Amino acid sequence: MTPERPPYTAVIFSSRRTASTPGDGYEQIAQQMEELARRQPGFLSMESARNADGFGITVSYWKTAQHARAWKQVTEHLEAQRRGARDWYADYTVRVATVERHYGPGTGSAGRR
Amino acid sequence: MTPERPPYTAVIFSSRRTASTPGDGYEQIAQQMEELARRQPGFLSMESARNADGFGITVSYWKTAQHARAWKQVTEHLEAQRRGARDWYADYTVRVATVERHYGPGTGSAGRR
Repeated sequence: MTPERPPYTAVIFSSRRTASTPGDGYEQIAQQMEELARRQPGFLSMESARNADGFGITVSYWKTAQHARAWKQVTEHLEAQRRGARDWYADYTVRVATVERHYGPGTGSAGRR
Repeated sequence: MTPERPPYTAVIFSSRRTASTPGDGYEQIAQQMEELARRQPGFLSMESARNADGFGITVSYWKTAQHARAWKQVTEHLEAQRRGARDWYADYTVRVATVERHYGPGTGSAGRR
């Protein structure tokens, strides 16, 4: 759950998967990374969506940019980032942003996966 | 395409669709709104993904927060927002954020739909 009031940090990860190969480890590692992220200091929430054509967006929310940066440097995550760049993603972009306003009925309860 | 260098503005729209009904107008209006957004002053890029279960994320990128705010107030968009809240979305959250850093091979070329 994200806090009642901004500011907080959003990491927007947009990616295009390579042709998915069962057994390439992607699903398992993606699941492990999500579980690991949720245990990091400053973690707030994470949400993901992916189209059938392989384009996906994952947004993770953090108390501060420092918390997001620390997660980027976690050893297992660094290894997953290397494998992602090499094997799983045909293209990707990471954007680190400060959320300044939010609204909608989901505010305070959305941000769930 | 988003600019070579931040800052710029991201509007993160997370939503859960109601049970989709063919003919409820959603697909047509969603397409129209995307085309209209792309013609607005300050528009940079838009990307979307939706899971088979109905959860989706759309991120639109704008030169400034003022450009994003102006798009929110465009008449046809206001009407689409009303219909969305009433008919198409079981839940939604909008977050307006300032992108402060970005990286990845897609930087400068990603952000395409």
